[in-house]
Amino acid sequence: MENIKLTVSRSFDFVSQAAVENYKELAEKANLDLHNGAGAGSDFLGWLHLPSQTSAEFLADIEQTAQTLRRQCDIVVCIGIGGSYLGAKAVIDALSNSFDWLQQPRKNPVVVYAGQNIGEDYLFELQNLLKNRKFGIICISKSGTTTEPALAFRLLKTQLEQQQGLAAAKDLIVCITDKSRGALRTLANKEGYKTYIIEDNIGGRFSALSPVGLLPIAVAGFDVQALINGAYSIEQQTDISIPFHKNIAAQYAAVRNELYKNGKKIEILVNFHPKLHCISEWWKQLYGESEGKDGKGIFPAAVDFTTDLHSMGQWIQDGERSIFETVISVKTPNHTTIFPAWEQNLDGMNFLAGKRVDEVNKMAELGAMLAHLDGGVPQLKIELPALSEYYIGQLLYFFERACGISGYLLGINPFDQPGVEAYKKNMFALLDKPGYEEQSKAIKARI
Amino acid sequence: MENIKLTVSRSFDFVSQAAVENYKELAEKANLDLHNGAGAGSDFLGWLHLPSQTSAEFLADIEQTAQTLRRQCDIVVCIGIGGSYLGAKAVIDALSNSFDWLQQPRKNPVVVYAGQNIGEDYLFELQNLLKNRKFGIICISKSGTTTEPALAFRLLKTQLEQQQGLAAAKDLIVCITDKSRGALRTLANKEGYKTYIIEDNIGGRFSALSPVGLLPIAVAGFDVQALINGAYSIEQQTDISIPFHKNIAAQYAAVRNELYKNGKKIEILVNFHPKLHCISEWWKQLYGESEGKDGKGIFPAAVDFTTDLHSMGQWIQDGERSIFETVISVKTPNHTTIFPAWEQNLDGMNFLAGKRVDEVNKMAELGAMLAHLDGGVPQLKIELPALSEYYIGQLLYFFERACGISGYLLGINPFDQPGVEAYKKNMFALLDKPGYEEQSKAIKARI
Repeated sequence: MENIKLTVSRSFDFVSQAAVENYKELAEKANLDLHNGAGAGSDFLGWLHLPSQTSAEFLADIEQTAQTLRRQCDIVVCIGIGGSYLGAKAVIDALSNSFDWLQQPRKNPVVVYAGQNIGEDYLFELQNLLKNRKFGIICISKSGTTTEPALAFRLLKTQLEQQQGLAAAKDLIVCITDKSRGALRTLANKEGYKTYIIEDNIGGRFSALSPVGLLPIAVAGFDVQALINGAYSIEQQTDISIPFHKNIAAQYAAVRNELYKNGKKIEILVNFHPKLHCISEWWKQLYGESEGKDGKGIFPAAVDFTTDLHSMGQWIQDGERSIFETVISVKTPNHTTIFPAWEQNLDGMNFLAGKRVDEVNKMAELGAMLAHLDGGVPQLKIELPALSEYYIGQLLYFFERACGISGYLLGINPFDQPGVEAYKKNMFALLDKPGYEEQSKAIKARI
Repeated sequence: MENIKLTVSRSFDFVSQAAVENYKELAEKANLDLHNGAGAGSDFLGWLHLPSQTSAEFLADIEQTAQTLRRQCDIVVCIGIGGSYLGAKAVIDALSNSFDWLQQPRKNPVVVYAGQNIGEDYLFELQNLLKNRKFGIICISKSGTTTEPALAFRLLKTQLEQQQGLAAAKDLIVCITDKSRGALRTLANKEGYKTYIIEDNIGGRFSALSPVGLLPIAVAGFDVQALINGAYSIEQQTDISIPFHKNIAAQYAAVRNELYKNGKKIEILVNFHPKLHCISEWWKQLYGESEGKDGKGIFPAAVDFTTDLHSMGQWIQDGERSIFETVISVKTPNHTTIFPAWEQNLDGMNFLAGKRVDEVNKMAELGAMLAHLDGGVPQLKIELPALSEYYIGQLLYFFERACGISGYLLGINPFDQPGVEAYKKNMFALLDKPGYEEQSKAIKARI
């Protein structure tokens, strides 16, 4: 197997290579702190050695549960919010047919998502979709009391039981939740659902390679062993034994911190393959939630090129010079399409005839990158040999490891998210949740 | 009918109301310059009076063409990039079932998009999807020589002719292009395709209410007359006769410029209704491409809440204080779903039982907005009475008019996009396009 490859040289017109090399000691220290649990948030480092600690037996169990759902369901609803659905969706979208929901007939169930919003129309239309359909539920929630997934689970569990009967429904529900505590654990034990554990030391945004991500990905028909193998290879390649200049996670962390220090406040994750769109959504949570605190943090944004060259391209080329780009490029497509010749050549495109479409895409990529460089946009590039479970596994772990190092370089705790509670407290106060009486009075006086 | 409503008062803790009122003269002048064609880019003001100039006869013709495609096709492929697909997709997604591609049986064809990327896998999978299916094509390109749509049209026109025969294919292709010049016009005339005109004075990102947006929207089964009616109502309400303090377009333009002047460099368009996701994508092009030039311009970003409160929420609450939010809120959902009671109440959510789901969503909205306000994030709010053609029409025109005014306040030409050409020139040079010999030599020496 090959490896994903990081190139940082196109940032050296903007920050000096020497300045980046100065991070050596700090970045190696940060990586060591992760390894030793000596840094901030060290209660949440369960993701660090997850690939190497995930056994073939465990994956076989995941695969067997997935098979049960695949055999019995036309649709599987993944209930979860934030890190409880973004990793699975990112991987499934990256590996699925571009028109997955339109495929007929299909080998594997359609995967849809719920509990990631409080959409009255969304839930109504979802319940309508599931009427008289053979569906299953994967409910992912550490506590079982987060409003969005709890609501979706209440609605869909009842619907499933009404459609299939209590006994059959029991086999169509899998819960991924706390080992021993919480509402969903209690319920799952009581009902006798199959369950998987969300470990206490793995936060939501670092859970893609845990059962949280693995089960939905397996249900969609993808090879979770290959995913873990890819992640494991990067776990080894970013280990503390790897020196700074060879450690791609440390390099990425150092360069982006140096760019940030020099006024590059926005990082735009760019892809040139539309299937990577949700990888960017996952990445936005990973970095935004890890680093956006204490009044600090790079603002993570994302574009799909060449699509958005005709949207955000103008801003990137000529707007405020406060951005840098990290480009994800896929070396080889999975299919072959040739640029066709046209006899009359009215559109003047015959000079491309006979080329693979991806060859044109790659020149668009190089052309755009050089144009943006000339426009004052520093660049990093991550190349994937192909879109496959293995290389997506590499990419996910790479970003996770780099995020831990990057957060330490920034001087924050990359593993907490204190700001996420603020809106929930207000919401509960506004909705008169028992126990919020004081806050209710205060917030209602305010509006 | 009601109207969309703009509220700006939650920005007055950060910029003074007096400072905003100081824009009165400039904003009214900007609006007058739009009206009189006296400002920069005045060759591109065809969108300004488009709603009032769109006749019922013209819309009937659009509807008739749409009906022909609807009757004959299971799938209609819209070929176009940037403004040639974003407006249609934004409106279609806002009005469609959340699980549109999974609906079976269906009244109207599935609308899919092509020519918005150079994806070898994407095009391969699209061609596979269309095999043995009754499909039609709407090709949208002013010149017919933009690489992405030209490539897609070459592939799909040939496929359609092979599957249906030349004569039948002719009736399944509609082109929206230049009045008289260009490759697509020449081809359409030669082949005898039905065509609609992209006027010279309407740029891509301002074309959603022209045939570019209207035909695909009508094909998807939506009421384009109501869309235009809504837009027309805001054309009147933002007219030069409307004073600054009553003109919502001028107000939005003024507040965002004042926020920008005070260091709020990123505008996050927030929705609390997942169907609005692509409205944000359309808005990003509209504002990013209009204002991102001369080293200036607010960086446009977008989130879907409550979904992304569990992703970008932490950054928004606690990251750099360089952002403001513009919230789009839909007053009344189209369907009713009640928060169900659970006997055992294991998740502790029974205090919500019996409420409409949207009531919880609205308290999440208010709770999040107050939390972000406390965290230092100024806010604007746009309320839509409902998700319907009429109010979406209002919203689109509102944003367009405000964009023109805002661009003039910023001191740039909001109607050009010089930066978009840079990557194309490089790409053509890299691909040895005839006529680019000098540039080819130069760029190849560089890499």
